[in-house]
Amino acid sequence: MYALSQLQQVRLNYKPQLPNSLKNISQCHLESVFGKSLSPISSEIAPLFPHTNHLVPQKIVTGKLTDHLPLRVGVVLSGGQAPGGHNVISGLYDALKKLNANSTLFGFLDGPAGIINNKSIEITENLLGQYRNQGGFDIIGSGRTKIESPEQFAAAEATVSSMNLDGLVVIGGDDSNTNAALLAEYFTSHQCKTNVVGVPKTIDGDLKNGEVEISFGFDTATKTYSDIIGNIMRDALSAKKYYYFIKLMGRSASHITLECALQTHPNIALIAEEISDDKKNIDIIVSEICDIICSRAKQGKDFGVILIPEGVIEFILEFQILINELNALLSHEKQHHAKIEEIVSKDEKTKYISELLSINSKQCFQMIPSEIQTQMLIGRDPHGNVQVSKIETERLFIELVAFKLKDLKQKGIYKGSFNAQPLFCGYEGRSCLPSNFDCQYCYALGHVAALLIDSKATGFMSVIQDLTKSVDQWTAAAIPLTSLMNIELRHGQLKPVITKALVNLSSQPFLNFKKSRNDWALKDDYISPGPIQFFGPSQISDSITQTLSLEKGNQQ
Amino acid sequence: MYALSQLQQVRLNYKPQLPNSLKNISQCHLESVFGKSLSPISSEIAPLFPHTNHLVPQKIVTGKLTDHLPLRVGVVLSGGQAPGGHNVISGLYDALKKLNANSTLFGFLDGPAGIINNKSIEITENLLGQYRNQGGFDIIGSGRTKIESPEQFAAAEATVSSMNLDGLVVIGGDDSNTNAALLAEYFTSHQCKTNVVGVPKTIDGDLKNGEVEISFGFDTATKTYSDIIGNIMRDALSAKKYYYFIKLMGRSASHITLECALQTHPNIALIAEEISDDKKNIDIIVSEICDIICSRAKQGKDFGVILIPEGVIEFILEFQILINELNALLSHEKQHHAKIEEIVSKDEKTKYISELLSINSKQCFQMIPSEIQTQMLIGRDPHGNVQVSKIETERLFIELVAFKLKDLKQKGIYKGSFNAQPLFCGYEGRSCLPSNFDCQYCYALGHVAALLIDSKATGFMSVIQDLTKSVDQWTAAAIPLTSLMNIELRHGQLKPVITKALVNLSSQPFLNFKKSRNDWALKDDYISPGPIQFFGPSQISDSITQTLSLEKGNQQ
Repeated sequence: MYALSQLQQVRLNYKPQLPNSLKNISQCHLESVFGKSLSPISSEIAPLFPHTNHLVPQKIVTGKLTDHLPLRVGVVLSGGQAPGGHNVISGLYDALKKLNANSTLFGFLDGPAGIINNKSIEITENLLGQYRNQGGFDIIGSGRTKIESPEQFAAAEATVSSMNLDGLVVIGGDDSNTNAALLAEYFTSHQCKTNVVGVPKTIDGDLKNGEVEISFGFDTATKTYSDIIGNIMRDALSAKKYYYFIKLMGRSASHITLECALQTHPNIALIAEEISDDKKNIDIIVSEICDIICSRAKQGKDFGVILIPEGVIEFILEFQILINELNALLSHEKQHHAKIEEIVSKDEKTKYISELLSINSKQCFQMIPSEIQTQMLIGRDPHGNVQVSKIETERLFIELVAFKLKDLKQKGIYKGSFNAQPLFCGYEGRSCLPSNFDCQYCYALGHVAALLIDSKATGFMSVIQDLTKSVDQWTAAAIPLTSLMNIELRHGQLKPVITKALVNLSSQPFLNFKKSRNDWALKDDYISPGPIQFFGPSQISDSITQTLSLEKGNQQ
Repeated sequence: MYALSQLQQVRLNYKPQLPNSLKNISQCHLESVFGKSLSPISSEIAPLFPHTNHLVPQKIVTGKLTDHLPLRVGVVLSGGQAPGGHNVISGLYDALKKLNANSTLFGFLDGPAGIINNKSIEITENLLGQYRNQGGFDIIGSGRTKIESPEQFAAAEATVSSMNLDGLVVIGGDDSNTNAALLAEYFTSHQCKTNVVGVPKTIDGDLKNGEVEISFGFDTATKTYSDIIGNIMRDALSAKKYYYFIKLMGRSASHITLECALQTHPNIALIAEEISDDKKNIDIIVSEICDIICSRAKQGKDFGVILIPEGVIEFILEFQILINELNALLSHEKQHHAKIEEIVSKDEKTKYISELLSINSKQCFQMIPSEIQTQMLIGRDPHGNVQVSKIETERLFIELVAFKLKDLKQKGIYKGSFNAQPLFCGYEGRSCLPSNFDCQYCYALGHVAALLIDSKATGFMSVIQDLTKSVDQWTAAAIPLTSLMNIELRHGQLKPVITKALVNLSSQPFLNFKKSRNDWALKDDYISPGPIQFFGPSQISDSITQTLSLEKGNQQ
């Protein structure tokens, strides 16, 4: 279908290894695990899921060979891309065919909108043959439409019923898996036979808990970013000329930044969760960065690498308040909204807004360089809200640090020369060729999803555990989606959602980072992990992230 | 010395293969090649190099084993980083030691400034053992100081004489090799025994000619950028949401952009040399981009990938004139310079400047988005000149395209939705782990440099040819640096320089691109080359660039 590079072609023929427990899938069964210490479903959640709040975790056991009826299954990719999505689909397809060669797999086009609008294609061996072990979500596309309104739920049911689907596999992040839980409940309550299974996807690494060790894509994305960061570090060290301010994707959570820091040893890495916990304001953060730059200048070093998680702005109290005020002004108070649209000059626009802000927020807003002020005012989402991910935080910090250093120079405290380069690592990590780890992890997740549907299990998430062991020792399981849910305020309404896992400040990955960062700040202990290797020594080509390794107790 | 990743550690032990002709270096000799069709040294160049204008190309032949005296050699890394620099040094070191175990290699610190200031360290096996096959120039650092003034030449001579050096190896681009030629002439004319040898380095790929097939670093850098571009393409295709405007490093020449285009098949790739040849103005270029975006929108496609060489601005006539006018205003006419520095408001600053420009330049300047106007006015080099490489061309094009599309939408011609993301691929490609090709190419270049100094040859460039053949078939040679030189106007003065090789519009790489680009514009024939592989199938791990392959006649 598409042209392929030589590496892509070779990867097409890569055979992901399966855990021993999934090798003979026709003999696999689910077995309920009672008494497993999942956090109990809260009294707020339980009534919202009357048909699926009783589910218990499942483990996969191998029993006798039994007959498996042919199944009709739909699969959808939901939300942002993550390397390995195609392998979930190929794992699902292969497992379905192994269970019964007459089973059929359909792919909904361009995300959940494909379910609502009943747009799908059949996934055939021929089609899949172009996508095995490849990056991207392009086999069927992805999308961010949510199934929310009663009409949308009804349309979804109409689609899966008209297609006579036995199962629907939702590959997505926290929101998409919340949606999967709601669909499972809805279908069950409407006597619709389609069983719904979720698969944990997101490069951000924020969909994890006691049972889900990591979402797929995090491994490849962090290795891809760490390669770039390592290259930049080596360049900084060679040219001795620039400070690189590297913003990293990852939404609210700082897992990606933390993992990349552990892999590469930057001079500074901001961890948003820590900033929030310490209640640091922007002035303190900037001062701390400047302190390190001053100390390095004293050693004759006017270069360095600073990692910034894209969500950091949301974790700094004064920015939170400013953003809330701006959102209120720009979306709700129509009078101002129209006026702001009217003013052509950017300078006047920001001046007009400034006057409407509280004293503290005005101060905060005026500190922001004008280009970024403009980004906040212009690049808003359909609700009129400031889009935090579009704020070029890396440039914001460069300007603030430059301003402070100028002052420190005048005072004779700073004697270096500050030249900075902004960089954003994001989109290039979402659709790359998946690492061996993500290829195998996803392939196994697809197998478990097939098994769940074959077992008529609905409202579960496909799970693979013991990921720090060798692939054959990985274990397969399933957990009730409802067990992941909490009630949160979203857009002014209390809703059941899967809570995003933020960086835990008592976790081993963070503690290891904390222990080393003062050394990294002044010494140049830079590490270049290099590009992802698919061949060669297994300790390289089959390596796992430090986050996973440290969280599972393998201290380094 | 530095911490190393597992991949870096494994790469330390990689053994670059040598061409057969260099395997027994103690038996190698130089042999003059008479009648070889180098472009004859011009009558303007010859008198500037009275002692080195007579040199003829050399080939390396294997003869009898002879005695080799111990040598004292200095090496310097000059200019921007390129992957493989450490391998030139290790090749040089190993060859010197093979020729005579008592030879000594010194590295000048932080570029040519180290020669002027007599700062060097001895390169030992122990030190080098940390840098074999590694990226960066950090073993001794690099720098951009040029040896230009009579005092600097005298200081350089004083250094090499005080160190009793038999040879000096200059690893650099066109300017640095020009400097090497001048040093060779100077040393010879001053009866200084230090022989000077140049090694062709630059990721930009613009140091090549009939004899030099490619500079080192181009291979690794273009593979690194193509990996990122391929990832972005796959993401664009999956999310179907953004146009990515990717600026690529490469200085004036568009070799990097052309090579990346051949590797990845973008929807659009601007080639600066073609724009110049066709005398296209900015309006035409933007219109052509918009035409493609409109055609794609008609197919329902609101996404794509556009490659932009960083030097393109210099090749668009109206920008050339504008930049010249700005340089004149800001550097020479002191009255304006002081006034501009005085004005604080960015808006007023640009307004003030606008009024001083010619009508055409004023029009051109006013078309530029304000952030980029500011970049042009503020980020100037020490001479007060606009720094073209600092202009964010990718953002300039996004703004201009967005503006034009708005107009086309109002006219009903464009019906799509335009969301763009800027990206700059640059620093991450200069210091990465060198590909197998660059590791081996550089190691061989280092061997030839050692041989030249052992043979008391001065004013030569180390050359490896037949690079499209297998490594053992590569041939080793040397060409007189003077044979590469022309007279050019630089900063108002006629100077002998090595002319930058721009993209040749009749060359096979460009013709292949031209033949395919209309297809690529509308179809999504995206290719993901994937990350550089050091292991695995040789057709992947030992691949060469398409530019090299096509220029040497292997049409694809």
